[in-house]
Amino acid sequence: PPFESRLEERDAVGFETAVAYALKGLGEGGIPIGSALVHHQANGEAWVVGAGHNERVQRGSCVMHAEIVALEAAGRLPPHRYRNMTIYTTLSPCSMCCGAILLYKIPRVVIGENTTFKGDEELLRSRGVEVVVLDDIACKEAMSKYIEANREEWYEDIGK
Amino acid sequence: PPFESRLEERDAVGFETAVAYALKGLGEGGIPIGSALVHHQANGEAWVVGAGHNERVQRGSCVMHAEIVALEAAGRLPPHRYRNMTIYTTLSPCSMCCGAILLYKIPRVVIGENTTFKGDEELLRSRGVEVVVLDDIACKEAMSKYIEANREEWYEDIGK
Ligand SMILES: [Ca+2]
Ligand SMILES: [Ca+2]
Ligand SMILES: [Zn+2]
Ligand SMILES: [Zn+2]
Repeated sequence: PPFESRLEERDAVGFETAVAYALKGLGEGGIPIGSALVHHQANGEAWVVGAGHNERVQRGSCVMHAEIVALEAAGRLPPHRYRNMTIYTTLSPCSMCCGAILLYKIPRVVIGENTTFKGDEELLRSRGVEVVVLDDIACKEAMSKYIEANREEWYEDIGK
Repeated sequence: PPFESRLEERDAVGFETAVAYALKGLGEGGIPIGSALVHHQANGEAWVVGAGHNERVQRGSCVMHAEIVALEAAGRLPPHRYRNMTIYTTLSPCSMCCGAILLYKIPRVVIGENTTFKGDEELLRSRGVEVVVLDDIACKEAMSKYIEANREEWYEDIGK
């Protein structure tokens, strides 16, 4: 199937972690967007240094988008550490999360899907960030299911 | 003095609150950047709905910039509420904080100074946000004092 061919092996751990957090969030009644921050080491190993899901519903937060939670979970890091990282997110990142990616100069973003919502991907590309969109069906289905039942929470999350 | 003439009366409460938080942060050994989110009502009253300071040092956070803390302190809000708000910050907002301003379509940003650091002000302007820079001496002095003694923490905060 087309989507599987887009997922490179080096991205499997990060993307699957992001999806797992999205589904955990959905199970909690939250907006099903997950993210993982992964450090790719010289020997090829991929380490998940931070992960999480959107916390609008669970923690009543307007800033704890999945990508922000993943960055926060990784803690304070020397800036050069981010240069060997990829951030995975199940949904195209909003302006705030794209801005966080630019702040820390994370060079690569892997996105589950951008059909439900398309964030500032072009801004990322224009500033040299590699952006990969997987067009993943499971990510889309989780969002469709959530939005159908919780349209107001979803609009609130994207400032609409 | 020139800077005082730039501060409009409607901005006094918000800007003074942002400065007070910056100085509170400095007193705690933190990066002295403060922010306040203010709702301007139809009758001319200005209500501070959220405020805070950078929490990198105090909470070990890489995402809790002053503007993000101010937004979080305001809590979950219906998106239209942000349309009558101004966000005040003692220092020019970084990419992440500019992205948060764009996410919630906050129409106006008042900045203490952009000499120490200049964030994505042009991106904000290009998307229709009104950006006012006060060139405030106290804001600059607090940052100079902090950075002189804590250069590494400061570079970490801007991903440098
Ligand atoms: Ca899938
Ligand atoms: Ca002053
Ligand atoms: Zn976001
Ligand atoms: Zn910032």
